[in-house]
Amino acid sequence: MKLFLKIKYNGTRYAGYQVQDHSPTVQRELNIATADLFGFDCDITGCSRTDAGVHALCFCATVQEHLKDYIHTNIPVERIPQALNVRLPSDITVFYAEFVPTEFHARYDVKSKTYEYRILNSHYSDPFEVNRAFHFSKHISDQDLINMQKAAKAMCGTHDFSSFMATGSKITDAVRTIYSCDVDRSGDIITVRISADGFLYNMVRIICGTLIEVAKNNISPEDITAIISSCNRRLAGPTLPPYGLYLVDVEY
Amino acid sequence: MKLFLKIKYNGTRYAGYQVQDHSPTVQRELNIATADLFGFDCDITGCSRTDAGVHALCFCATVQEHLKDYIHTNIPVERIPQALNVRLPSDITVFYAEFVPTEFHARYDVKSKTYEYRILNSHYSDPFEVNRAFHFSKHISDQDLINMQKAAKAMCGTHDFSSFMATGSKITDAVRTIYSCDVDRSGDIITVRISADGFLYNMVRIICGTLIEVAKNNISPEDITAIISSCNRRLAGPTLPPYGLYLVDVEY
Repeated sequence: MKLFLKIKYNGTRYAGYQVQDHSPTVQRELNIATADLFGFDCDITGCSRTDAGVHALCFCATVQEHLKDYIHTNIPVERIPQALNVRLPSDITVFYAEFVPTEFHARYDVKSKTYEYRILNSHYSDPFEVNRAFHFSKHISDQDLINMQKAAKAMCGTHDFSSFMATGSKITDAVRTIYSCDVDRSGDIITVRISADGFLYNMVRIICGTLIEVAKNNISPEDITAIISSCNRRLAGPTLPPYGLYLVDVEY
Repeated sequence: MKLFLKIKYNGTRYAGYQVQDHSPTVQRELNIATADLFGFDCDITGCSRTDAGVHALCFCATVQEHLKDYIHTNIPVERIPQALNVRLPSDITVFYAEFVPTEFHARYDVKSKTYEYRILNSHYSDPFEVNRAFHFSKHISDQDLINMQKAAKAMCGTHDFSSFMATGSKITDAVRTIYSCDVDRSGDIITVRISADGFLYNMVRIICGTLIEVAKNNISPEDITAIISSCNRRLAGPTLPPYGLYLVDVEY
């Protein structure tokens, strides 16, 4: 058995999820908290590697094979989130725990992931959205929004997404399936929500940068199909900053 | 003429609004930004003194009498917010500016102010609500909420609010008029919204601490009238922490 956790974190303070030398990371905090709770260093596997500044409303991870046999405390599994939370900084919260079979793999067994990207569309920036949304000050009209939605729809399906992959990526197979890509406005916040079977490096941030170009009328919704089939990173929009990005759901 | 400003700020980093020696304050940042923009030290008057950690969605202030005569730049008033914003840290934003008569006083001319207090009512804390809401983990039922709303209604009107004033306050006249006091739930967030002609020191935070005692069934809605008329601080609830408090509106 492995311990399966669902975790929410504000990524602002962290150099991403994955452990790195000399930088605070979410995984390092989980290592410290689990070692303190269980009494030994635990092997933790995350569902993905989020970049520095990226947030998660639902990040999934497993802790240590055969953990159930080793737990020397008598803590019931439903108490584990709170027992870890008191050992974690306040910008990381474990909100679910269960035991899963040893064969389960937090990364390889992912069927789909969903990301949201938050765009603050207001004349002035917002002190409460610093590091939480990308500020775009030019007003996005209803027609611009409709164009973004059309472009988002054109992203859906199974394609080679090389145009939407960071240059220098070592991935050879860039074919992914986007199940849905929706753009919605609520007040000053425009949210792009994308579900796919997997994501290339910077893929969501480049898709959202392309949707911003659509809002600026530099790219039309009808151009998206050609941009995808070109497999040319230079035809897509810029990579938006990491702090607007949230991992919101993982399906197994 | 004076320059009138509306300001939004995240109070987390600040020792309150008012200038203090050796501590970062919102007013100090405004002093630095206005001096840099206008070329001389400005006299700034705020609508109130918010405490350390308290936030504002709409804080009002005036800058310097006769400022219009002195401005050596040709900046139109509608450009002043952005000109100040580039000189302010990202957790303070000026979003409105206009010239008002010299007689106008940002503090003495206030007719009413509205505060909101945000309570996160969820089993686990939320990394995105740290320093932004008071976490209360016991579930507030619909009936508890109705009781809080009844108690909130009983706060309204003109009363001596000594029971809801920090002990040690030097105020002699504790009579204030609460125009409205509403409690609403949206998802995990319960918001208390209070409008009054003025507030005693810690008044909102003590009222909200009292409403939490109502949610815990330690105080009943019917007790509120007696707590008010007792003028006894010890009968009211505890003072909730500053970081759930937001100044949201000021009327002149």
